Amino acid sequence: MRNPQLDKNGGLRHLLTLDGLPRETLTAILDTAAPFTEVAEREIKKLPVLRGKSVFNLFFENSTRTRTTFEIAAKRLSADVVNLNVSTSSTAKGESLLDTVDNLCAMQADMFVVRHAASGAPFLIAQHLIANGRNDIHVVNAGDGRHAHPTQGLLDMYTIRHFKGDFSQLVVALVGDVLHSRVARSQIAALATLGVPEIRVIGPKTLLPTGLERPGLRVFHDMAEGLRDVDVVMMLRLQNERMNGALLPTPQEFYKNWGLTAEKLSAAKSDAIVMHPGPMNRGVEIDSAIADGAQAVILNQVTFGIAVRMAVMSMLAA
Amino acid sequence: MRNPQLDKNGGLRHLLTLDGLPRETLTAILDTAAPFTEVAEREIKKLPVLRGKSVFNLFFENSTRTRTTFEIAAKRLSADVVNLNVSTSSTAKGESLLDTVDNLCAMQADMFVVRHAASGAPFLIAQHLIANGRNDIHVVNAGDGRHAHPTQGLLDMYTIRHFKGDFSQLVVALVGDVLHSRVARSQIAALATLGVPEIRVIGPKTLLPTGLERPGLRVFHDMAEGLRDVDVVMMLRLQNERMNGALLPTPQEFYKNWGLTAEKLSAAKSDAIVMHPGPMNRGVEIDSAIADGAQAVILNQVTFGIAVRMAVMSMLAA
Amino acid sequence: MRNPQLDKNGGLRHLLTLDGLPRETLTAILDTAAPFTEVAEREIKKLPVLRGKSVFNLFFENSTRTRTTFEIAAKRLSADVVNLNVSTSSTAKGESLLDTVDNLCAMQADMFVVRHAASGAPFLIAQHLIANGRNDIHVVNAGDGRHAHPTQGLLDMYTIRHFKGDFSQLVVALVGDVLHSRVARSQIAALATLGVPEIRVIGPKTLLPTGLERPGLRVFHDMAEGLRDVDVVMMLRLQNERMNGALLPTPQEFYKNWGLTAEKLSAAKSDAIVMHPGPMNRGVEIDSAIADGAQAVILNQVTFGIAVRMAVMSMLAA
Repeated sequence: MRNPQLDKNGGLRHLLTLDGLPRETLTAILDTAAPFTEVAEREIKKLPVLRGKSVFNLFFENSTRTRTTFEIAAKRLSADVVNLNVSTSSTAKGESLLDTVDNLCAMQADMFVVRHAASGAPFLIAQHLIANGRNDIHVVNAGDGRHAHPTQGLLDMYTIRHFKGDFSQLVVALVGDVLHSRVARSQIAALATLGVPEIRVIGPKTLLPTGLERPGLRVFHDMAEGLRDVDVVMMLRLQNERMNGALLPTPQEFYKNWGLTAEKLSAAKSDAIVMHPGPMNRGVEIDSAIADGAQAVILNQVTFGIAVRMAVMSMLAA
Repeated sequence: MRNPQLDKNGGLRHLLTLDGLPRETLTAILDTAAPFTEVAEREIKKLPVLRGKSVFNLFFENSTRTRTTFEIAAKRLSADVVNLNVSTSSTAKGESLLDTVDNLCAMQADMFVVRHAASGAPFLIAQHLIANGRNDIHVVNAGDGRHAHPTQGLLDMYTIRHFKGDFSQLVVALVGDVLHSRVARSQIAALATLGVPEIRVIGPKTLLPTGLERPGLRVFHDMAEGLRDVDVVMMLRLQNERMNGALLPTPQEFYKNWGLTAEKLSAAKSDAIVMHPGPMNRGVEIDSAIADGAQAVILNQVTFGIAVRMAVMSMLAA
Repeated sequence: MRNPQLDKNGGLRHLLTLDGLPRETLTAILDTAAPFTEVAEREIKKLPVLRGKSVFNLFFENSTRTRTTFEIAAKRLSADVVNLNVSTSSTAKGESLLDTVDNLCAMQADMFVVRHAASGAPFLIAQHLIANGRNDIHVVNAGDGRHAHPTQGLLDMYTIRHFKGDFSQLVVALVGDVLHSRVARSQIAALATLGVPEIRVIGPKTLLPTGLERPGLRVFHDMAEGLRDVDVVMMLRLQNERMNGALLPTPQEFYKNWGLTAEKLSAAKSDAIVMHPGPMNRGVEIDSAIADGAQAVILNQVTFGIAVRMAVMSMLAA
């Protein structure tokens, strides 16, 4: 079976997951994003790439932050953007996900940016479009369940390439709640595809999933050991709703063991960069001094995120 | 008293209801909509018709679906669209409906798309504008109580004309909860005005209003009988909130008696079309095999709905 | 310490409060607004002043009405507008106000329109931007706690100047709940700066703050006395949530004593204008006959409000 993300010429048709996306496609997205970072610094931050196109932000799960990044990216490409908070809409009236999609297709949608609490929902929509021969409508996964958050993974790769240049010599560490993180899944897939030789996963046993094993991936339960000589530290967000759950003692205890402080970071290379997908829980995953410090590239990630989303959208519409 | 929907030259000033709208006006709207269906298939789906105009989606009752269709239509005409979910706004602060309208007029609104749970609210707004000499501001009823949903009725007429060509030889059946349906009221008015010789209303006695009698209208309580040799089957939506009410036994029982299945549809002409205003309750009003089948034109209705709304807005702004 | 609202050349950098804003700046805003009132009467109500700029409506407190006026003003200047209802967003996930701001800055925001229940929040954001050297990003206070609502104050000044021409001979009365009104604070500051020789504050003792004393300001507890020979009557809104509180007897009793009626208004000059920031509680603060009467300029305030907000935004972006 062909990769549903690619058309028959290997062009990007949907962006659903970074797992299985070829290295040349990943690299093409990062290359396309580069000039878009400059658009944002112009006096008039607009390009006519998606003029007259209708982009639907189809959010079955509320996320103002992610929705905003896609809305800005689409508007900078001159698209018409319609925000649909679908939890309050037709699905509440008993309409199925695919009926909702069919209706929006009938309104001549050009692109769906889909956020859904259920893993696989964007994939289901893409398959439905393919089955109906709708090659003119594109799906971007903006986060589905615990499965994937590919544009976050891409902006992370853009950030690493921007600061480190080359993937082939890097040691990259992911820290924290890997178990519940769709971001981590996308990051690991992309890092492996782009040729990072050593990926480390650091966290308490209760928050590390089984089945992570792959060549080049090492698991650590100790920060000092896991961060030793790494080039990149990728912190993960601890979901508030987990903080007082069975898997974790308290936020304070988590911070003591896994929160990134100057002391723990000193184990890494002196020019290591510190990343976080946001929003940060200061004093839980990360100390404020580090979050605002010289090694942090957390706000660069946000800036590159707009450019990467513009790149994905313009490639899909091409 | 003059029809408040028409200006002194007979041009469309407000669209409040299809009841009493002359046949030539209905036909003019359908004729205007036709080229707009082609706009949607262009590379750049935009026309400058409403450029610099402010369209307010004034939704006193939540309906993401309907709001979306008007938002897309207005944006394709290059209008600036402002969405106001008014239940959470000033009326909650005790401001009256007409004070809200006066305020928006003072902000130089050009058009109000009004959805309201109370029958007559858009009419009240239009009368207020007329009394104040504001002939430059236009009202479109996007559904008011049990009264009317004229753009839905118009897109239904567009769909019938598209597939059947001529109204003058048709037998059209409406099926289901006519009692609570503003859609049905608009459909019946338009079908009669456009010269459909036989309109059938099919449903349980508890869901058929009294006072339906008009020449050419026949009431049926049996599907096999009511659908016999019809050209068009217009299913109505059963509101979820009614399903377990006093007027109905259970969704299952409703489906058994009034749900459209292949067997029941076989009574209609073999080229009959099946319509539904959406969102559908599959397995309640309609069997999935019919909803997705060759006779269904349900998604065409949605597509034509954008064109019809563009037509109405452009005629009002002319 | 320099006024954070002004850049080193005295140009407007942020609009946070009217208190302390020089008279020439106030006058410049009113002068800039004048031509924008004409834009609204053109066929195409759009200017390219903010084309390609991203304006964020950052509403930490819900206010559809105020948000709408800024949204319209920004769209008429061709900006891309993103509405963020932040109570449902990242701050709910524990992200701090300034982290949210930093993230939006990283998305290349050009302007923040900030509404917040806490007095001083827009000031905090502006200080943060200044501390970070972000002179390219501008803050407009759209109402913070009990502190200030500067664009409301400005549109009120525009309205007075429009109808009365000259501030230097006027007697202006503010009536009602001054204690809880950010609008009153902004009005008093602007009236004083613009040279109004006599400002009267009229209301029950429980709703008048202490510390109002300044040259030219007089306090009254009787309407007949307070309104005698005034040129301008500025009614204040009585918040619903206060109406049955400890400070007030009942809405009926408030109306009897402080509600503006024809009888009470007759004490003012015969050409006095009546203003209200809206939304009005008819029959509480003001009689309907007055609200809709010949002396009321309440809807003019709304119209001028769009022009004033366009003026502020265009001066900030200049």
